[in-house]
Amino acid sequence: MKTLVLGGARSGKTRHSLGLAEGMGLETIYLATGWAGDAEMTERIARHRAERGAHWTTIEEQIDLPRVLVKESRADRVMLVDCLTLWLSNVMFAELDVEAMSDALVSAMPRMAGPVIFVSNEVGLGIVPENALSRRFRDAQGRLNQAVAGAAERVVFVAAGLPLVLKDSEGRGQASV
Amino acid sequence: MKTLVLGGARSGKTRHSLGLAEGMGLETIYLATGWAGDAEMTERIARHRAERGAHWTTIEEQIDLPRVLVKESRADRVMLVDCLTLWLSNVMFAELDVEAMSDALVSAMPRMAGPVIFVSNEVGLGIVPENALSRRFRDAQGRLNQAVAGAAERVVFVAAGLPLVLKDSEGRGQASV
Amino acid sequence: MKTLVLGGARSGKTRHSLGLAEGMGLETIYLATGWAGDAEMTERIARHRAERGAHWTTIEEQIDLPRVLVKESRADRVMLVDCLTLWLSNVMFAELDVEAMSDALVSAMPRMAGPVIFVSNEVGLGIVPENALSRRFRDAQGRLNQAVAGAAERVVFVAAGLPLVLKDSEGRGQASV
Repeated sequence: MKTLVLGGARSGKTRHSLGLAEGMGLETIYLATGWAGDAEMTERIARHRAERGAHWTTIEEQIDLPRVLVKESRADRVMLVDCLTLWLSNVMFAELDVEAMSDALVSAMPRMAGPVIFVSNEVGLGIVPENALSRRFRDAQGRLNQAVAGAAERVVFVAAGLPLVLKDSEGRGQASV
Repeated sequence: MKTLVLGGARSGKTRHSLGLAEGMGLETIYLATGWAGDAEMTERIARHRAERGAHWTTIEEQIDLPRVLVKESRADRVMLVDCLTLWLSNVMFAELDVEAMSDALVSAMPRMAGPVIFVSNEVGLGIVPENALSRRFRDAQGRLNQAVAGAAERVVFVAAGLPLVLKDSEGRGQASV
Repeated sequence: MKTLVLGGARSGKTRHSLGLAEGMGLETIYLATGWAGDAEMTERIARHRAERGAHWTTIEEQIDLPRVLVKESRADRVMLVDCLTLWLSNVMFAELDVEAMSDALVSAMPRMAGPVIFVSNEVGLGIVPENALSRRFRDAQGRLNQAVAGAAERVVFVAAGLPLVLKDSEGRGQASV
């Protein structure tokens, strides 16, 4: 099963995802897409690491998520990808083709053999950013979230640490109730 | 029936609205409020146009939405207004009275004879914008969304392409369940 | 019962909270955390005051919310705290320890004898702010919202004036349905 956990900054989306993964009773792999580029990021990574228990194995991959996920995903392990927003910014920073990479990730999803939980930010609910790069990023993130949500069996929105199901494993969301 | 489809940038709110409209089996009119002021906007309009089929008739109106909607709305056609956010920015840019125009739109809603779907952005979920005009816009948009939601029979929030019903045709939302 | 009402700017969260409080049939106390530092804020406070009826008693407290709430909360009155976002910005502006103050508020919640409704902004759903202080504020707000939500019996998200229950008095949210 593929799950997308969507939320804002400091919404508790990582913590919720850790809980989801730990509840599965499988080997737990944390796929970190961020890197310690500055003090803020280093501190964030350390805090996240402390939140997870020692039973998590960490893999780092900043760019080639599709390949690593297809290679490492197995029925007896759950992989938590934290997060697609950092990954997308890595792809843009490296001046790679954002649409092609996004398409590659989504089309690889059926070839991931076990459960994968993707954490991603919703970034489109503020005022239009003044700078063009931010607008481009916002558009790319929105399109990626839509595509991953379309391919996932379960989509959850997290606010203040609380989950709201947008799509469940039967393909139904709250809207169809 | 009047419907408000609310969402962030690139949330899939237009696509969801197109689907809603097409499911009604009526003549479909796309009321475009944006204009091709720059290359970004021109590209956006072209992309949106390609997403709709040829069975959509497009009407453009940047300012006088209340008059055009009352005049064109009919029981045998559904009108999709895309979007109130661009309309509001046109009204502000033209230095018209934003509150008066918002009131005029909402009070005209009962006089629109057929179904109308209003697409609008939620823009108040980021950090307080540093510039005063953005704060003014954010306030005006929030108030307009509340007023249209109050007058609509159905309100849907879209995230990652997935709808979440806030108010349904019986006037009940998820909260009253 | 402790309630958290979360929403964006101009989402109707204060109006929704006033309605919640007035429906309880208790004495109503409005705890204002903002102060009239500039013309914009003065106008906002005046508008909010006009929205409430004369049956509301207003208390102002910019900093020491834990103490005032424990002291004033009683079983026969409901207190509406409007809002945690202004309070947090007061705490940061006064260069007090944000984490310690947040912890103090949350740990004081069980000692508030009557119903309290906390209004707060969700501010993490836009693009990453360019300035470091805004990022720090966004993080502190997100963590505070999570902590208050964890300690509250009921959490509601308001968009376009419409409530969406994230957690109800039985501790269940939409997600567990």
